[in-house]
Amino acid sequence: MPAPFQTSRRVEFRDTDAAGIMHFASIMGLMEEAEHEFLRHIELPLFLAAEGGKISWPRVSAKCDFQSPARFEDVIDIQVAVQRIGTKSVTYHFALSCEQRPIATGTMTAACCFVGNDGIRPVPVPEDVVEKLAPYQQDPS
Amino acid sequence: MPAPFQTSRRVEFRDTDAAGIMHFASIMGLMEEAEHEFLRHIELPLFLAAEGGKISWPRVSAKCDFQSPARFEDVIDIQVAVQRIGTKSVTYHFALSCEQRPIATGTMTAACCFVGNDGIRPVPVPEDVVEKLAPYQQDPS
Amino acid sequence: MPAPFQTSRRVEFRDTDAAGIMHFASIMGLMEEAEHEFLRHIELPLFLAAEGGKISWPRVSAKCDFQSPARFEDVIDIQVAVQRIGTKSVTYHFALSCEQRPIATGTMTAACCFVGNDGIRPVPVPEDVVEKLAPYQQDPS
Amino acid sequence: MPAPFQTSRRVEFRDTDAAGIMHFASIMGLMEEAEHEFLRHIELPLFLAAEGGKISWPRVSAKCDFQSPARFEDVIDIQVAVQRIGTKSVTYHFALSCEQRPIATGTMTAACCFVGNDGIRPVPVPEDVVEKLAPYQQDPS
Repeated sequence: MPAPFQTSRRVEFRDTDAAGIMHFASIMGLMEEAEHEFLRHIELPLFLAAEGGKISWPRVSAKCDFQSPARFEDVIDIQVAVQRIGTKSVTYHFALSCEQRPIATGTMTAACCFVGNDGIRPVPVPEDVVEKLAPYQQDPS
Repeated sequence: MPAPFQTSRRVEFRDTDAAGIMHFASIMGLMEEAEHEFLRHIELPLFLAAEGGKISWPRVSAKCDFQSPARFEDVIDIQVAVQRIGTKSVTYHFALSCEQRPIATGTMTAACCFVGNDGIRPVPVPEDVVEKLAPYQQDPS
Repeated sequence: MPAPFQTSRRVEFRDTDAAGIMHFASIMGLMEEAEHEFLRHIELPLFLAAEGGKISWPRVSAKCDFQSPARFEDVIDIQVAVQRIGTKSVTYHFALSCEQRPIATGTMTAACCFVGNDGIRPVPVPEDVVEKLAPYQQDPS
Repeated sequence: MPAPFQTSRRVEFRDTDAAGIMHFASIMGLMEEAEHEFLRHIELPLFLAAEGGKISWPRVSAKCDFQSPARFEDVIDIQVAVQRIGTKSVTYHFALSCEQRPIATGTMTAACCFVGNDGIRPVPVPEDVVEKLAPYQQDPS
């Protein structure tokens, strides 16, 4: 099984809340930051030029379980894996931890969409995109 | 079946992103804002005084499906219902729409925790809290 | 002297930080929210259609003094006044308080810009915009 | 004259807005992130233990001029200098650029405060803190 993509981020003060911990919506934002860093790593632009418009990836669902709090200045390790490559969508899986302590796990599904002057519509994930994502797909059975 | 709690919020510019729409993490933040407004409505403080500490509600999971984008200055109607009152947790259900157009639905589960000097631990949801939440419980079967 | 425009906002949990107070950048975001509400009140769209493009208001400076902290669920009263209508910019003044206790004062200057296909350039503030803003100008001497 | 402290950050999607650029309040948040990284660099904790409480640095003013927009995925270089060490406050100066193009400059003043059980009060900046900050003071005349 391939290794997931790994990155890390420090908890910034502006992402904490009055409970003294990283706010849950910021944790989900952090997952997106890691997803975008992964896309840069595999050289897949978030907005892909296409004939008459561009291809992008609006989020259709997000899900997160929180195991323990992250605090200001904690360094969060983030693992990004491709959980599923659908016909017209991709699902990413995220695992966040701090010095081996689990912080959160989550998934996000993004629809592959053509964005043109006449609106936005789901389209099949292009073959070359599948090829870039496939090496990071976990448990593709 | 009881009516859910209803409120509304306008999409602020700082919650939009470069795709021209409300950022998904801000939508989940909006669900929390509605949850907190609901708690004020039923006169249940987010931080409840308790002997030797306080009772609060760390989030253990959040889940959201996005149906259509919300844009700057859209007015978002938010329905909050109590989906489940567990022994030591409460799950809320949220439905967001803009002029009847569905924007997002989601759930969030918060654990009932005692926060004291010696740390934080899950505790049973107090009886008077159950009484305040119960009238908003949908489909309690 | 004319009355300033007035609005209010409750401090949301996601805008607090680990010091237990509203984060300074969120306070500045709140000033912008009040500015946008003021623009809706005088029926001045943030993005104004113009021949071959649109007119908008990128921020060129922001300044804020913080007098006392705002906490979760505090209701913040916000006064918005037009401090200066320049040839190609407008400066707003903001005063935030909570039950008469001063929270923050600030100013923000937005440049009047034409945004077209060939980029963005400062343009004179249109006459009808001046007319809408002028009644809220404080101390125009 | 000493070299300023230097760091960099990439513009994340959640910090952009519907004008397609980094939101001004996020730019000010970025200045704070750089300030905190500078404090870690000189080994000065944001919350400093003190007899009967702690010493911290509530912000008393912030000021920013915006020269040009930053966009998603731009790498922002940030220079942090100590502009002034007052008796009971410190003022930092920030310069942000992207591939030499100026993005923003700003200053932030933080008050040195003792935070105890009986509230918060300004106190003189401790001698050892002055010693850590002084090497980064620009133009101390």
